[in-house]
Formats: sequence, C-alpha cells, structure tokens
Amino acid sequence: MRIAVLGTGDVGRRIASKLVELGHAVCMGSRSADHEGGLAWVADTGGQASLATFADAAKHGEMVFNCASGQHSLAILSSAAPHLVGKVLVDVANPLDFSEGFPPKLSVCNDDSLAEQIQRAHPEAKVVKALNTLANPIMVAPRSLPGSHVTLVCGNDEGAKARVAELLQSFGWKRDEILDLGDVTCARGLEMWLPLWVRLYAKLGTGDFNLALVRK
Amino acid sequence: MRIAVLGTGDVGRRIASKLVELGHAVCMGSRSADHEGGLAWVADTGGQASLATFADAAKHGEMVFNCASGQHSLAILSSAAPHLVGKVLVDVANPLDFSEGFPPKLSVCNDDSLAEQIQRAHPEAKVVKALNTLANPIMVAPRSLPGSHVTLVCGNDEGAKARVAELLQSFGWKRDEILDLGDVTCARGLEMWLPLWVRLYAKLGTGDFNLALVRK
Repeated sequence: MRIAVLGTGDVGRRIASKLVELGHAVCMGSRSADHEGGLAWVADTGGQASLATFADAAKHGEMVFNCASGQHSLAILSSAAPHLVGKVLVDVANPLDFSEGFPPKLSVCNDDSLAEQIQRAHPEAKVVKALNTLANPIMVAPRSLPGSHVTLVCGNDEGAKARVAELLQSFGWKRDEILDLGDVTCARGLEMWLPLWVRLYAKLGTGDFNLALVRK
Repeated sequence: MRIAVLGTGDVGRRIASKLVELGHAVCMGSRSADHEGGLAWVADTGGQASLATFADAAKHGEMVFNCASGQHSLAILSSAAPHLVGKVLVDVANPLDFSEGFPPKLSVCNDDSLAEQIQRAHPEAKVVKALNTLANPIMVAPRSLPGSHVTLVCGNDEGAKARVAELLQSFGWKRDEILDLGDVTCARGLEMWLPLWVRLYAKLGTGDFNLALVRK
C-alpha cells in the first residue's frame, strides 16, 4: 500500500521503518523535501522510501499517519488538507504541552480531543486514533513485551478502523488485543491516558511497558 | 483501628463493610445521623458499626476515607475540617461530572485534581489518593480477578502511604501490586484514567476489570 507518514521524529521514523519492512511504499512527510533527518532516514532504508513535503507525502498515501507533535498537528494537516479527503488518517499524536516542563499537560482534553479537532477540520478524512497510548518501540513490536496486552483504537468509520486493525495485526498485534472503543469522541480517554502514562514511565524508569486488562 | 468512611453510596458501603469484616471500628459519615441508607447498612453489620454526621464520623476515625461523590467532596470535608488535622485521609472520589450525561466529564483535571484541591483545603491532613481507578467490588476483592493487576496510590506523606498500603494488603492486594506513583500531583493521572475507564466499562459491559501492566 502507498502510505504517508507525516513527521520525522522518533514516532514517525519508527512507524515508517516498520511499514517499509512490511513492503509498503512509504513517503515520509516533512516541512521540506530536503529535511536532513528525513533524508538520513531515507538513506537508512536503502532508498526504499522517499521524503516529501507534508502535502506531497499525503498526496502519495492511500493511508496517512499523523506522527507530528500534538502541538503542530493541526497546522501540518491543514497544509495537506486536499490530499486527506476520503483517506484513512491514523492519528498517533498526543496533545502534550511541555511548556511548563515535566510532567506535561494536555493542550486539549476532557470535552474535546486532538483527534476530534482533526476530524472536525477534515470532515472528509476518516480519522482513526491509534497507537498513541504506547511508547513507539512497542507500537511496532508488541511481542517484545510478554503476554497479552492491548492497543486501543477509535473513530467514526468502521471500514477505516478495520483497515487500521489489519495493519496493526501486520505489526504483530493479535486480533483480540486491538480494542475498538467506539467513535472518535473516545479519543478523549485515549489521550487522557497520557498523564497517567508519563507518571508510570517516571515510576518504572522505562517506556517499555503497556496496559493489559484483567477480567473475570 | 478506628476508621471513618464518609459517604453512604456504593463505594462507601463496600469499603466500610470490608473494614468491619476485618475487625475495624467503623463509623460511617452521612449528612445526618439518621440517614436511612446509613442506618440500614449499620443494621446489616449487626450493629458492629455506627452512623454519624460527617464531622462526628471524622472525629471518630484515626483514618478517614472520602467516599463521597466528587461533586460534594470538598463541602463535606470542609464540614469535618477540624477532625482531619494530622490524619490519613484516603481520597477514593472521582471528580465525575454527569451534568451533560454519559460519558461524564471531569470537573477538574489536567493542571489540578480533586485530591490536590482536598490537600490544599486541608494542609494538615495527609491525603492519599487510592482505589479511585477501580470498580468498588474489585477495590476490596482484588483476587476476584485472575492474575496480577495494579492499584495506584499517590500522596505527599510517605508514612501515610505506607499505612494505606498496609490496609490495601489486608484487602487482598499484593505488595507489588500497589504502585506508589509519587506526590499528590500524580492524582491528575489517576483521575484522568476515568474517562478511559468509563469507555472500557461501556465496551466490556462490566466494571469487573482492572489495569495490569506488562513489562519487558
């Protein structure tokens, strides 16, 4: 599949590399088509992937991953707006606000979420919130943790969620580990997990952990 | 130990009953000392416990559980203020706001929390946030779920947290399942888990689940 990964940070590179490994035609989106870190990543893939502006990358993708920072996501997606129409837009970003240091606050929460803001700004995109509850090494290598654990998704379009679930399974997630919580308003809960995640991260001294659910 | 449980709702009755079962001298606090539901609960214990006003119950307790609703917690604790000085105050409440229906919002979050509001209002109480991340049947019967799972606590006073951890172990929690995340500001994360908890509750169709952590 032709996939755009918007963002050249740790999360973007991690997901993009996994997608390349799986044989997808990946275009990484950046502020400029000659972004140093982006070009270095393309070189690391042995030229199997490409780098372009956010808009051109989105144009390339049948599916688009938003791996930009929460802070910049809306502006970046706005710059690519015409190329998001009708496409599955996987929102991995978290609206973390580090302006007052650690722990971060959220720039939006409680009665709204970043995923909802993105869905409102791009009503013809099919926003699926996914993978934002995890450290990036775990996103693409769930079996690096022992036992069963969960990854949470939500969004308004059932078909889009099914396509994302299929892709997550190719990352190593088992079908019953992918929990679809409902429509895009569920992203409030997925994003509000982060203030607890960062405290668990500080306590455990590692991001190599994940949420599992025990039930009767 | 003499323990006050403020609140006659499901959470208060569940915790108070467990404490009675464990042999503690429990006084349940209510708006009035002849509250119907409170008196019915006292009768259920075979008169092993008592009912009093919030203030008189707090006066009775060496340790005080806040099991009031998030909405009413500050006013209720204010009415008992002199009797909270120097005591461990276990805050089980969540600042859930159902005024616009389901799912609830939080009335405080992100850069503050109910536990912090309580600690500021009662600087000489030793506030420990605990058990708020769980359905009440699981709070006092953790072994009713299979395997290992976690309960999260936080607060500024190490001695108070140690006493609460001891009490939690008498409920059936294993030592390594009780995760102390740090000072009272960590309550933001513990309370912001609720918007995700309510979505998981809706998805799973039961509150009989809990968070476990998988690690490398």
